[in-house]
Amino acid sequence: MNHKIAKKIHPVEGIKISSVISGMYKKARLDLSIVEINSKASVAGVFTQNKAKSPAVIISQKNLKKGCPRFLIINAGNANAGTGKDGYDDAVKYCKSLANKGNCSIDDILVFSTGVIGEKIKVRNIVNSIPNLLQNLGSNKWVELSQSILTTDTENKIISKKFKLAGSYITITGVTKGSGMIMPNMATMLSFVATDIKIPKNILSKLLKEITNVSFNMITVDGDTSTNDSSVLIATGKSKVIYNKLNIDDKNKFKKNLQFLYIELAKKIIKDGEGATKFITINVEKVSTHQIAKKIAMSVANSPLVKTALFAEDPNWGRILSAIGNINTDVKDLSNIELRLGKILIYKNNRLYKKYKENLAKKYLKNTNIDINIKYNTGLFKSTVWTSDLSHEYININANYRS
Amino acid sequence: MNHKIAKKIHPVEGIKISSVISGMYKKARLDLSIVEINSKASVAGVFTQNKAKSPAVIISQKNLKKGCPRFLIINAGNANAGTGKDGYDDAVKYCKSLANKGNCSIDDILVFSTGVIGEKIKVRNIVNSIPNLLQNLGSNKWVELSQSILTTDTENKIISKKFKLAGSYITITGVTKGSGMIMPNMATMLSFVATDIKIPKNILSKLLKEITNVSFNMITVDGDTSTNDSSVLIATGKSKVIYNKLNIDDKNKFKKNLQFLYIELAKKIIKDGEGATKFITINVEKVSTHQIAKKIAMSVANSPLVKTALFAEDPNWGRILSAIGNINTDVKDLSNIELRLGKILIYKNNRLYKKYKENLAKKYLKNTNIDINIKYNTGLFKSTVWTSDLSHEYININANYRS
Repeated sequence: MNHKIAKKIHPVEGIKISSVISGMYKKARLDLSIVEINSKASVAGVFTQNKAKSPAVIISQKNLKKGCPRFLIINAGNANAGTGKDGYDDAVKYCKSLANKGNCSIDDILVFSTGVIGEKIKVRNIVNSIPNLLQNLGSNKWVELSQSILTTDTENKIISKKFKLAGSYITITGVTKGSGMIMPNMATMLSFVATDIKIPKNILSKLLKEITNVSFNMITVDGDTSTNDSSVLIATGKSKVIYNKLNIDDKNKFKKNLQFLYIELAKKIIKDGEGATKFITINVEKVSTHQIAKKIAMSVANSPLVKTALFAEDPNWGRILSAIGNINTDVKDLSNIELRLGKILIYKNNRLYKKYKENLAKKYLKNTNIDINIKYNTGLFKSTVWTSDLSHEYININANYRS
Repeated sequence: MNHKIAKKIHPVEGIKISSVISGMYKKARLDLSIVEINSKASVAGVFTQNKAKSPAVIISQKNLKKGCPRFLIINAGNANAGTGKDGYDDAVKYCKSLANKGNCSIDDILVFSTGVIGEKIKVRNIVNSIPNLLQNLGSNKWVELSQSILTTDTENKIISKKFKLAGSYITITGVTKGSGMIMPNMATMLSFVATDIKIPKNILSKLLKEITNVSFNMITVDGDTSTNDSSVLIATGKSKVIYNKLNIDDKNKFKKNLQFLYIELAKKIIKDGEGATKFITINVEKVSTHQIAKKIAMSVANSPLVKTALFAEDPNWGRILSAIGNINTDVKDLSNIELRLGKILIYKNNRLYKKYKENLAKKYLKNTNIDINIKYNTGLFKSTVWTSDLSHEYININANYRS
């Protein structure tokens, strides 16, 4: 399968986008967007598990259950979280304005916010922007959408692919944002992806859930998310391709392409991680369950001691071993594991590998992309997690975020 | 109860200590100690749950089960962890030497190591130091012991108290080390405390476990520990006080004093946390179980976003709310919680408190000691966790630890 992503961004028939500078973000830049969705589209969503849910998430979850949304409205600069009933009322206010001018029910709108938590959202800025947003809807504005949702991100994150399926072309295009890194669970992640395949909502929802588990959920701690995390997948049904009529091979081809694109989006978040200087892939193999494999990979990924060592390009593998050992599993000790940095074998048979040369490992760590490969040797399951290092710049960004 | 800790360090009858410069540590300073314990003493221990246990821990756990140890041997500079069978053999070698020259069985020795993981320990340095160590045993060397066990710590951590119990004096004196801070689970914590009360081993063990749960375990993530964490409590029985003959009030007085001293030791670790500029106490009250209360407090304590905000003295309370919300509990949302910085009420009734003034919170955060007070308002249980902020200095220390 050819996984090259065209630099060209393909519009998705059925989707129109509009972005403006509303004055919500601390700098003057695109910070407010709406996405118009054709009627009869299927829309699926995955949302944060955080108890301190933003009103935006509460509204979106409620309206997604009701039927087929016609508009997404997305702002950056203010998360409208920790704002309680006032924040809910504020979101309802600008939804009413959009429903009114956009000729839909208020129940047909999904709401997304990202930015500072705990500050009142500027409702007037949004309401005043709505006529302008509606007048400028266009199908070729994915790049603008990708820019308008950024916060501490340093670059926009967009994927697009057009490919043949059962004799017809289909398109998948999407954007994401997010760059909190030490524990990605604390940083808002938003994602909006659209495709023109025709597919029932229940199947689309199942697919999104499955794919989230091997993409966005592999860069975040299981179930631990921010106040605003939201991921939306839209299927407009405007192409000739009907999912339910595809044979099993073509269904799989669609799934694989969609999954690949989601993994690419997830990786883009890591690559733009706050202060990141390294892109780290942690592969854990031969574990008794997938769940334990993921826990081990996450323990290494979230260890600040491992992350600072990688920032310093120091092959301090003892810290990796300690992070692996932190996970309670079915083994008594770690005497069976094999640990490699890239292809460099470091630890095997309960001791440092005899031919291990630290200078080779040091040289390897000068790369930007680093693989930590762990064979646990107790079972058949594996897991891959992506993360970044922990640098001074992370502290700078997060100590100064509000100022 | 008067909890003042005398600046005077009281020796504990039955305990002799000796410390030398063995050349194990990267700088020339005290780095190797032995503690001689009188026969008939009771000794209890709590050890790491990490799967990548140091041979030191394996030996100590084994020998503690067998009977009454006569010697502790403790080195700083090398953790002898991740060293597998070779590391085990190395530890046995120098234990044999100590047993031989110290006239005891090899089974009477407990071993403790802290420092770099994954490097071979210098057995010869230890073996060569043993005669010198044995010749210089003295009862007044607790300060030397406290210095010899440090690694990235910037100051020694020692407590001592002498007080009357049932008409006679008893003494409690102890030392600790450890200063890894973001996730204290990854940094080695050692602690050695002695008292001259007479108490059976099984009761002493129970007491140590209980007290660890409200002291050292409140500065670490539950069950997640380093390769070498060890905490030892010795009761020499050399005073006239016999625990089993105390009335209930005196038993409680002993427990409370011991607990207070352990909490003081734990707090010393936080205050000397790597790069710490703030000492943060997180109180979570009115929760349905103690366990959930602790989880909530730990979630706030371990949030890098909260820690960097406190480093910046920024009352970014939304991050605290988000960290609270990250814990899965029996509540649907956080509409009942009350959040205070010190006495400053910030959040109540599902919204920002109307009289909250950010400049007051900013002023409060200029203090070194900061309290985050959370009322969850769903039950009767509470928990207190201590932590520090996350600063540039943390990155410096951990990116440079081996160089």
